[in-house]
Amino acid sequence: MRRAILYCGAAARGREWARITQESTDDLELRVWPEIGDAAEIDYLAAWTIPAGLFDGLPSLKAVFSVGAGIDQLELATIPAGLPLIRMIEPGITACLTAWVAMAVLAVHRDLPAYVAQQRAGVWRGMKVVPPAAHRVGLLGLGHLGQSAAAALGGLGFPVAGWSRSAKALPGIACHHGDAGLAAMLATTDILVCLLPLTPETRGILNAELFARLPRGARLVNAGRGGHLVEPDLIAALESGQVSAAVLDVAQQEPMPEGHAFWQHPAILLTPHVGAVTQTETGIEALLDNIARFRAGLPVDGLVDRAKGY
Amino acid sequence: MRRAILYCGAAARGREWARITQESTDDLELRVWPEIGDAAEIDYLAAWTIPAGLFDGLPSLKAVFSVGAGIDQLELATIPAGLPLIRMIEPGITACLTAWVAMAVLAVHRDLPAYVAQQRAGVWRGMKVVPPAAHRVGLLGLGHLGQSAAAALGGLGFPVAGWSRSAKALPGIACHHGDAGLAAMLATTDILVCLLPLTPETRGILNAELFARLPRGARLVNAGRGGHLVEPDLIAALESGQVSAAVLDVAQQEPMPEGHAFWQHPAILLTPHVGAVTQTETGIEALLDNIARFRAGLPVDGLVDRAKGY
Repeated sequence: MRRAILYCGAAARGREWARITQESTDDLELRVWPEIGDAAEIDYLAAWTIPAGLFDGLPSLKAVFSVGAGIDQLELATIPAGLPLIRMIEPGITACLTAWVAMAVLAVHRDLPAYVAQQRAGVWRGMKVVPPAAHRVGLLGLGHLGQSAAAALGGLGFPVAGWSRSAKALPGIACHHGDAGLAAMLATTDILVCLLPLTPETRGILNAELFARLPRGARLVNAGRGGHLVEPDLIAALESGQVSAAVLDVAQQEPMPEGHAFWQHPAILLTPHVGAVTQTETGIEALLDNIARFRAGLPVDGLVDRAKGY
Repeated sequence: MRRAILYCGAAARGREWARITQESTDDLELRVWPEIGDAAEIDYLAAWTIPAGLFDGLPSLKAVFSVGAGIDQLELATIPAGLPLIRMIEPGITACLTAWVAMAVLAVHRDLPAYVAQQRAGVWRGMKVVPPAAHRVGLLGLGHLGQSAAAALGGLGFPVAGWSRSAKALPGIACHHGDAGLAAMLATTDILVCLLPLTPETRGILNAELFARLPRGARLVNAGRGGHLVEPDLIAALESGQVSAAVLDVAQQEPMPEGHAFWQHPAILLTPHVGAVTQTETGIEALLDNIARFRAGLPVDGLVDRAKGY
C-alpha cells in the first residue's frame, strides 16, 4: 500500500517537497495539509506547527518530524507520548546559521553596531582595531550548530570556548559543562553567543546575573530564541556598560512590537529571525533520508529526548 | 657606530616601537620625529607620511619603510629615486583586514544593510535566506591580503574567484587576469570585493561600466581606497538596482564630508577606514625583521616596484 507524509507548513515549500518526493521515492507521497487524502495512509507528519486536533484523525502515524532545527514552536503536550519526535538536521540550516553567527560575531568584534549609529549621526571616528585573536568567543550550546559555528569562528582566528549541559570533548574548543563550567567560561568570554535550544531550563538564561559574570564590556550574540533573553536586563547591561553591544536575530515577541526599546537602540543590531531557514532541496533530502532510516529500523538524526526538551 | 631608524607617524605607537627596538636589538635605535638626533646615524625611515624636506637632512638614508599596508599616502615623487621603498606586510594587518572583509561580505550576503534600514523604520520582515554557496565572491586583487581573504571566504563556504594584473594560480580560487579575465570574473560575481592597491591604473576602477558587467543586483565591498570608487556611479547603480548593497571602509574624502549621500543611504554600511591598522607588537617585529634582512643583503618583504606603484 502506498504510504504518505503529511506536511504542515509554508505552502510553497510543501509543493516543492511533494514534487521532489514523487521524483525521488517509489512508495512515498508527500501531501500538503489540509489535503490529507486517505488518512490511513499517513505514516509521518512533517510540521512547523500542528493544527489542533490533527492527531485524532491520523490513526497510522509513526513519527513526527519538525521542519525546523528547533521544536520549541510545537506544543509538546499535544503530541501523543509514544510518537518519536525528530528535529531537522540538514546541511542548509547548518550552513546558513553558521554564516549568520560568523557575521554577528565579526560585527560585534569590529564595533559595527557603533559604526551604524555613527553613520546615522554623520560621525567618522575609528575605534581601536584588534585582530580576532584578541576577543575570546564563548558559545552557549555545543550541539550540531554550535560545533559548526565553533569551527567557523576558530577558522577566522577567534579563540573559542563552548558550554553544554553534559561534558563534551571537541578538538580546538575549550569545552565546559554544568554550572561550574558555565561560570568559568563566562569569566573568560569577550563575545558570548547563544545557540541553545529553548527549554524550561534555558528560558531566561541571558539575564542580569549571567551578564555580571562576563568581563566588563563583553558583547552578546543571540542566535537562539527570544525566550533565552530577559530583554530589560540587556537594556540595563548596555546602559551600565557591562555589555557593550549586541546582535540579535530573535525577540520575545515576533514580530517585535512598535515602541520596543531594541528598535532604536544604538548598541543593538537586529535581524528578523533569519538566522537559518530549512533549505528546500537539502531539507527534503534530509527528511527522506531520515524516514528511510526510520523505516529500516536504523537510528534517525535529531531524535528528541522529550524529558530534556531537545 | 650606533645606527638609527627615524619614525614619522602616530606618536604613541612611536614610543612603543622605540621601547621594543631598544629591548630587542643591540645596535639599532628608533627615534620618533621630530627628535632626529645625529642625522648621520639614520639609516632607515619608517613613515606613514613624510614631512616636507626631510630627505635633505638625512645623508645616510638607505631605505624607506611604509608603516601601512599601502604606499598611496606617500608622495612617491618626493622620495629620492635610488631609495628602496618597502610596504608593511605584517600578520596583524592581514588578520584585521581579513576579518573586516569577512564581516563585510557576510553582511551583504545576508542583507544586513537592508535590515539596518528596516530596524530604523521599525520593520520586521525577513528576506530570502540562502547559504554562502549561493553567492559567488569575486576579489579584485590577489596579493598577500587578497589571498588571505580568499582563504577565509572559501572556508566560510563561498565560491571564490579572484582577479589580478598578472596571471596567478592559487589553490581553491578561480584565478583571472588582464582585461578579458576581468570581464569574465565580473559576469559571474554576486559579491565584488576590492582589495587593490591604489595606482593610476586602478583609480576609479569601481565605476558604472564595471557595475554594468556584474549580474543585476550584485553587492559591493570596498576594502581598498576611496579613490577606487566613482562615488556618484555607485549611487546611480543602487538607484537602478544594478548594485543592491554596499559595505565601504573608505571614501574619496576622509573624514567623509557632511551632507555626503553615503551617510544616510539605506543600502550602504560605512566604517571609517578601520579595515586594518598596523598592530603595535607584530608591526615592529615585521619592521625589525625586514631591516635585518636588508642589512644582510637578503630580499625584503613588500619591496615596491615604483613603476607599477605597488
